[in-house]
This record gives sequence, structure tokens and C-alpha cells, in this order.
Amino acid sequence: MGTPDPVNSGELRAIPVLGIRDVFAGDSVAGLVVDALALGGLRFHDGDILVVKHKIVSKAEGRTVALDLVKPSAAARRFARTNGADARVVELAFREAKRVVRKKHILITETQHGLVCANSGVDVSNVDGGKTAVLLPADADRSAAQIHRELKKRTGLHIPVIVADSFGRPWREGLCDVAIGVAGMKPIHDYRGKRDPYGYKMHATEEAVADELASVAGLVCGKDSRVPACIIRGYPYRRGKGSARQMVRPAEKDLFR
Amino acid sequence: MGTPDPVNSGELRAIPVLGIRDVFAGDSVAGLVVDALALGGLRFHDGDILVVKHKIVSKAEGRTVALDLVKPSAAARRFARTNGADARVVELAFREAKRVVRKKHILITETQHGLVCANSGVDVSNVDGGKTAVLLPADADRSAAQIHRELKKRTGLHIPVIVADSFGRPWREGLCDVAIGVAGMKPIHDYRGKRDPYGYKMHATEEAVADELASVAGLVCGKDSRVPACIIRGYPYRRGKGSARQMVRPAEKDLFR
Repeated sequence: MGTPDPVNSGELRAIPVLGIRDVFAGDSVAGLVVDALALGGLRFHDGDILVVKHKIVSKAEGRTVALDLVKPSAAARRFARTNGADARVVELAFREAKRVVRKKHILITETQHGLVCANSGVDVSNVDGGKTAVLLPADADRSAAQIHRELKKRTGLHIPVIVADSFGRPWREGLCDVAIGVAGMKPIHDYRGKRDPYGYKMHATEEAVADELASVAGLVCGKDSRVPACIIRGYPYRRGKGSARQMVRPAEKDLFR
Repeated sequence: MGTPDPVNSGELRAIPVLGIRDVFAGDSVAGLVVDALALGGLRFHDGDILVVKHKIVSKAEGRTVALDLVKPSAAARRFARTNGADARVVELAFREAKRVVRKKHILITETQHGLVCANSGVDVSNVDGGKTAVLLPADADRSAAQIHRELKKRTGLHIPVIVADSFGRPWREGLCDVAIGVAGMKPIHDYRGKRDPYGYKMHATEEAVADELASVAGLVCGKDSRVPACIIRGYPYRRGKGSARQMVRPAEKDLFR
């Protein structure tokens, strides 16, 4: 495999994909991105990475639920009442969860794919003003792989794809974008055993590059904008059969379970 | 106050600062960065942000300890023996800690400033081949503020400064760079109460932009390289009296304590 040459001498660029229209079930995310770029006079280059916010992926996959049709359970109603939440959203979060991690003020769950986040990632913002909830993609690694394949067809290029969502984390304030789906690159760079410039053998240095790349999209795409994707150019990623699932720490290795 | 205009139409650039020499106690980090840029034919632009890896800040501040001079306590020796660690590093980690968060396989502590990380941030890599340990800056917000002031003197520009270090986190594999010191900008963008393009009022949307900017440096500076700083250009930061301490979640709001 090996690392493709960086596009330039170490500089990284993050280019917002502007002009993507509202996304509906059945849309091709890859197609929308390529078309939006073309309208702006842009195109993918060899070495580029595409980061897509999960919401348009979920919408394209029809992972939306009309809140009017959701009948909250007694447990969901109880939690919602105590914490000022929407019982229908809580109900969806319960349904999407493999387990409830914390249920104090806000609901932290673990999803089927091991993602630990608020409300199982169920979100009502940036959809249609509060009538519809968006779920996480059923399998965001599969979503990333599909977009990756379609980009290959459309552009002839190997473009790694990261599906990103904003997650909170313990101990620190604020959300950061992380990679919930990855295709076409290794999500973690492992420096263990390599020597630093002083000859010292490094340990405990695995870098979560897919999460750091997702964070770049957090900065470039913003939270309330209609910029649901960006291209990262100039990052010497490592090709490989990567997945976001590799970034989920196995329970037995996790100090915080 | 207010947001300065972005340098360009939404594109973000991260420019590595190459050619910074080995750093010693008493060095001026701001001076080293400005001089290294000039040698490369570069200079700061209005709107730029400087991200500096904490290690050169600690070295410049003399926050290093010769491991030969460290006498480990019985507790440090015990933990080191059980977990294959260096008792002298464990001893320093204990000394730097306000409390021990977890002590299973690796040592997770909370530092005086509320940072939760492995070994209180004490690190032996990228120093001198294993003879010397580097501690975190005594107060990385103060370090950032000092570099920020010196940059103002040297360049005449308002350049926000972020001091970054790589931290692990629960539930996810790998390290990401986070902001342990901030000056000249707000570390968190608060979108709560703003309306999305569909008129829906957002909540729970505080973005940890300083951590996301630190992650960019993680990508551009690498782990084993001699690129200890980068410039981020084109990010519409918000000016303000920011600090990394604002990013530490107060114990009473933290679901995971």
C-alpha cells in the first residue's frame, strides 16, 4: 500500500463544498458533491480526502423519522419530563441504542456500532424546522465505502471518505467532529516502536487521524450552515481498508467502562 | 470585538512552520517562530492563528527534569513494576497530578489545571533520547498569552495562540491534539439559541473550536517530526479573552465523574 505523495510541501488545505442542495432519500451523495464542485469550477485531485457531515448521508439513505408518528414509551416520557427533552426524540434514542451509558440531564448511549454519544446521534436541527428527526446512518462505514466507490466511478480517483458527526466527550466542554464512518484510508496512524529524531523509541503514540480530519470539517463546515462537506487536500493519508469501527475502543481495553 | 473577516472564501489552510531549531530554556517561542517563517520567506497575515505543540513551550520555560535526579516513591515503583513503566516518569506524573483518575495499565490523572490525561502529560519522547522528561507548561494559558503578546510586538498583528498536546479519550482509540492553552480567541463557539437554515432553534451546540484547531496541528505537525508549530489561515475565529481553562468541564456538570 504505502503513502501517496502529499500534494504540496506539507501545507494542508480544507476546501468547503458549496452549493449542495437539500438532500432527499435516494440521492447520491457522491454525485451531489461532484456536481456541486463542478458548478464552482472545482474538481477532486489525486490525494484528496472527502469529509461529509453525517446528516446528508442519513437523509440520502432515508434515515429520517416524522416525529408525529413516534409513540414514546413510558420510560422515554419520564426521562423527557424530568429533563426538558422531547419524548419522541428520547424514544428514538432509546430505540437506536445498544445500551444506555448515562441518563442524567442528558442521555448518553452506545449505538449498535459502539459509538458513545448523546441521544444515539438522533438530531432534529438542520432538517425541516422540528418536524423530522435524523438518525445516524445504519452503518456509516458502509455509507463511506459506497460514497468512496461512487467517487471512483465518477472521477477515476481513489478518494478516501470520512463521515463525520459532532460528539461531546467527558471532561471537556464543547463538541468536536469525529469520524463515524471511514473508507479508503487507515483511520489511525501507529507510531509505536518508531524512533523520534533523538533516537528514543516512542510508545503509546497512535494518532486518531480520521477524527482529526473530521475536526477539520467541523471548522470548515460550521454548525448552522449549508456546507455539509469539505475536501482536505495535502494530507499524506495512508491507504488501507480502514473503518471507523477500528476507532471504537474494545470494552476490555477501555479504562472508563 | 467581533469576528475578523476570513482571509478567503471559506478555505482553511494550515501551514507548517519549518526550520525551528532545538529549543532550550529561556528561548522565546514567538521569536523562534517568526524567525523560522522569515527564513522560509513567510510571515504572519492578519487573521492567522498560531498553534504550537506544548513540548517546545515547556522546553523554553525550562519545564524539563533530568530523570537521573528523580527518586521514585514506593507507590510509583509499585505502579511502574506492575505495568512495565518507568518509575521515574510515574513519580513525576504523581507529582504533577491533582488527583489520580484511573490507575489500571496506564496512569490517568487530572493536572492542577483540570486536564485529564495520561501521566499528567509527562513525556520523554522527542527530547534527548530518554534522559530527560518534559512536563506540561506550569500554566499553558499563561504561556499562550505570553507568546500572543510577543507576536503582537514582533509583527504588530493580533495572532491568537493555541498550545496543543495529544490526549487520549475514553471509548475511542488513538490520540487527538487538544488545546491546553489559548490566548486571543474564544475557544468555544456557542450556537445555542441560533436558528438553523430551517428556522429550528438549536440547543446543545457548543463547538470546541480550539480543540478542532489543535487537531489540525496534530495532522500538520505529525508526531515524530521537528515541526512543532503551524499557522492556520482562513478560520473566522472570534476574538475574546479566551482560555483553555474554559474548556475544562466543571466537575458538577461532568457526567463522568
